[in-house]
Amino acid sequence: MPASIQLSECSYGKTGVRLVKVERHGARHEMKDLRVEIQFFGAFDAAYSEGDNRLILPTDTMKNTVYVLAGQAAIGEIEYFGMRLANHFLERNAQLAKVRISIVEKLWQAIGCNGRPQDSFRLLGSELRTAVVEDNRSETSIRAGVADLAVLKTSRSAFANFLRDEYTTLRETQDRLLSSNVSAQWSYKSLGQDAATTWQAVRCVLLDVFAAHESRSVQHTLYAMGRAVLDRFACIDEIKLSMPNRHCQLVDLSPFKMENPNEVFVPIDEPSGLIEAVLQRCASE
Amino acid sequence: MPASIQLSECSYGKTGVRLVKVERHGARHEMKDLRVEIQFFGAFDAAYSEGDNRLILPTDTMKNTVYVLAGQAAIGEIEYFGMRLANHFLERNAQLAKVRISIVEKLWQAIGCNGRPQDSFRLLGSELRTAVVEDNRSETSIRAGVADLAVLKTSRSAFANFLRDEYTTLRETQDRLLSSNVSAQWSYKSLGQDAATTWQAVRCVLLDVFAAHESRSVQHTLYAMGRAVLDRFACIDEIKLSMPNRHCQLVDLSPFKMENPNEVFVPIDEPSGLIEAVLQRCASE
Amino acid sequence: MPASIQLSECSYGKTGVRLVKVERHGARHEMKDLRVEIQFFGAFDAAYSEGDNRLILPTDTMKNTVYVLAGQAAIGEIEYFGMRLANHFLERNAQLAKVRISIVEKLWQAIGCNGRPQDSFRLLGSELRTAVVEDNRSETSIRAGVADLAVLKTSRSAFANFLRDEYTTLRETQDRLLSSNVSAQWSYKSLGQDAATTWQAVRCVLLDVFAAHESRSVQHTLYAMGRAVLDRFACIDEIKLSMPNRHCQLVDLSPFKMENPNEVFVPIDEPSGLIEAVLQRCASE
Amino acid sequence: MPASIQLSECSYGKTGVRLVKVERHGARHEMKDLRVEIQFFGAFDAAYSEGDNRLILPTDTMKNTVYVLAGQAAIGEIEYFGMRLANHFLERNAQLAKVRISIVEKLWQAIGCNGRPQDSFRLLGSELRTAVVEDNRSETSIRAGVADLAVLKTSRSAFANFLRDEYTTLRETQDRLLSSNVSAQWSYKSLGQDAATTWQAVRCVLLDVFAAHESRSVQHTLYAMGRAVLDRFACIDEIKLSMPNRHCQLVDLSPFKMENPNEVFVPIDEPSGLIEAVLQRCASE
Repeated sequence: MPASIQLSECSYGKTGVRLVKVERHGARHEMKDLRVEIQFFGAFDAAYSEGDNRLILPTDTMKNTVYVLAGQAAIGEIEYFGMRLANHFLERNAQLAKVRISIVEKLWQAIGCNGRPQDSFRLLGSELRTAVVEDNRSETSIRAGVADLAVLKTSRSAFANFLRDEYTTLRETQDRLLSSNVSAQWSYKSLGQDAATTWQAVRCVLLDVFAAHESRSVQHTLYAMGRAVLDRFACIDEIKLSMPNRHCQLVDLSPFKMENPNEVFVPIDEPSGLIEAVLQRCASE
Repeated sequence: MPASIQLSECSYGKTGVRLVKVERHGARHEMKDLRVEIQFFGAFDAAYSEGDNRLILPTDTMKNTVYVLAGQAAIGEIEYFGMRLANHFLERNAQLAKVRISIVEKLWQAIGCNGRPQDSFRLLGSELRTAVVEDNRSETSIRAGVADLAVLKTSRSAFANFLRDEYTTLRETQDRLLSSNVSAQWSYKSLGQDAATTWQAVRCVLLDVFAAHESRSVQHTLYAMGRAVLDRFACIDEIKLSMPNRHCQLVDLSPFKMENPNEVFVPIDEPSGLIEAVLQRCASE
Repeated sequence: MPASIQLSECSYGKTGVRLVKVERHGARHEMKDLRVEIQFFGAFDAAYSEGDNRLILPTDTMKNTVYVLAGQAAIGEIEYFGMRLANHFLERNAQLAKVRISIVEKLWQAIGCNGRPQDSFRLLGSELRTAVVEDNRSETSIRAGVADLAVLKTSRSAFANFLRDEYTTLRETQDRLLSSNVSAQWSYKSLGQDAATTWQAVRCVLLDVFAAHESRSVQHTLYAMGRAVLDRFACIDEIKLSMPNRHCQLVDLSPFKMENPNEVFVPIDEPSGLIEAVLQRCASE
Repeated sequence: MPASIQLSECSYGKTGVRLVKVERHGARHEMKDLRVEIQFFGAFDAAYSEGDNRLILPTDTMKNTVYVLAGQAAIGEIEYFGMRLANHFLERNAQLAKVRISIVEKLWQAIGCNGRPQDSFRLLGSELRTAVVEDNRSETSIRAGVADLAVLKTSRSAFANFLRDEYTTLRETQDRLLSSNVSAQWSYKSLGQDAATTWQAVRCVLLDVFAAHESRSVQHTLYAMGRAVLDRFACIDEIKLSMPNRHCQLVDLSPFKMENPNEVFVPIDEPSGLIEAVLQRCASE
């Protein structure tokens, strides 16, 4: 009998659901700027193999639901909005085994207003706040994060005593530029009503450790950043960090009879290093 | 005793190693245009936790190695080049548990030359050929693929009889535009010397089934495409397909007293559907 | 008396009006995929200085108009569609001094269909066809073009005998890689009903001359390409070419005791050269 | 006699010259992150038409020169660095009629350091500072600017009393969201040693007027912003503003029996309005 074919994984959903919500408290406005992604997992095999759509809620309905829930109440922090969306879909869709809600928030700041209405904003930066909520009916995981947090150190960054082989030409250095676009995602063991405060505090720890660290490598600094978050936040039990090493090459000015005492660099986008790790809190023994 | 912290996953490597190789056979030249990524997995904990770099081969050396291997012999198909790189790193680095090589190839075509030297090329399209080789010393997995293969059907694409809830406003349709940027990655049970021929043949099957299919949904067409690949290629035992549904909305011309008999559409980038699945060949029973 | 302030230039319009038009001839379909930009020039000063919108046709109406005209008749070639749009706006808007319509077309190709309906397409490449129509009521200029035409020569490309100063380190070469993303825009002295044929023919000449040329520099090749177009197409009286020089650096393999006989290169995106020129046909004397 | 062909415009140069300069004052470091473009204009016809490179300074030398000048002295403000580069090239290259230096600066901020060395930075935002210096040997023009300054108003933004035609469906509004990515470039009649202070002050005026304005249209707000700059800075005699109107569409929640009192919006990237103007100071009469 011939081998047959099975659907070993499947999912479908909507990506890029963009949403600006304005919340007006008299002359003081607040705004949120989100991009939401919804992904459904479950027993949809007949939709794939037979074209039977009876268990397929349209992705257009997912999109509508985002706007409906945004209209029904204040968005609040994105971790909570993700949970509301996940609950909504699971409660009404018995066919779902799991739902994943991913939200990316652009951060805006009110423009100083000197007594004027507070109704004007500027984009705060290129960095993004993220949240991923995954619910499989028995467990809810909540990961908060930051993406594209661009940082650079101009000293106290070394890379030496590394492994060498016949194709190694890199020189050891005690003093290189270290530039990265940090992405971090941390998992909450428990999350209370303070998602905003915690997010701000974690972001500050990440920046602060990056700035304070006497770095022997990107790996070393990444670990110190993750460790500090786990050390200081009992509510977090895991953190994933991803730190590209965006190289800045020292320019060789010797053809022009000039020295370059670690001052003039060419930042390059490609190639770049890519350093990743997950740090976990172990159960106490 | 307090909880301690462990590194549950870690990896590092180089991304964006770009390479153009010209192979000259008299007046007939061939060229390859690749972007290579190398990722190392293994017991590097001390590098992270202690800043001990003694087991860290620099990512700069990974980059050099790509150029050395490219210079030593013809590149050949990217699946083989990925295997050469994976072998090279595993043989010389006992500290590695696993290595992953990911290669993306841009496709160029010789410009018709009427007896001239064949030394001029144009980029064939926006689609990319991909290969991922993963070797953990006991198993080598080879996945070939295509990315960003933009396709569009102007008829024989329906979406009806789907699940509805109170937030569903989508109308059933027998005749919508179906536009996608197909990504597919297939795993070879065995791969002989015909990686190029097989890649071309799989790509043709994907396009051909997309064009021929009487689609009831993106899920339905995705499955048909994957199934056809498994049916026709005994050397492939798994295929992952990812097909965004890039919506084309029918423009409402009724305010202008005009009909729009399925002719004028607005393609939109966001939001989009995202449909994914993995199809596997089951062991014969 | 104090200096006052004037509006020395102003314009407004709509950009990114995307449009897919399907034209159905029985089982044989055709499709166009356009992005249209409309820009109005004229005496709108009061809109700027006073907030008086009485002469401001909304950009939303410009967008609607694109869809209406697309629905009324076959799109045809983009040069003609641009002229229809320009005429439409000028005829109905006495306040306009000039209108500019810019259209970018993505190129799709029918997937081979073996007797099936011809209703499925794949994107042909990353290159784009462009048209810009400008009408100031006394003159209509029509520029057709191509953008992002990626080409690469692997021999017969030199750069030598150039000017040197104390900061010049570049070596002379008789044999470098020459890689560019050609953009060209040519102006029609007169344009008949053959915009499609002419566009194809000009594109072929550009590619053919690029491939055939014994290049002494990008400037030299750019000129040869433009000159050939003016020589062969009496209906064209001007062509602008823009050719970045996307450097491919020869990799230095000498640290590894290897030669690199012009085979292994690193293509880099930044920095790049940028070479531009406009060639015109002079009036005969 | 047949028509001949002339080169009516030509230029060449280097784009994407990236530079990070670190200036170390003991434990307090400063950094600049620039992308420089150099463009040469002059009588290079023989390079194009004959492949005669004798008057062509390689673009590679332009790049080297940027690094040499960056190494010789503090960069200072980008307007001054642009002037140094322009002077350098004009003085040494008699063949040049004009040179244009364009610089884009990414803005970084020191991470708060509590007594630590100030050697760590984070990218301040997505907005960019720009400068363009053009020198044709008889005149030097200096334009400073800001690009990608993303702003949004949640009230006091109307669009009404506009021109309507048969294809107008837009409703009048007294209260829409107004979102834009402002680009502004202003020309200095004279520029002293205070380029940094002036740039900061102009940027503040632009933000402040955007926030304070009772907007009747993007045109109206753009004009108010430009006018305020000319009113307050006697050293500036012209300003060009470019403001896309990045539409935020009110979501229709009526199918779900909900109101949407100007709260839930979909921001869209395409299509967008594009409003531009140049304001000039007239000579006093």
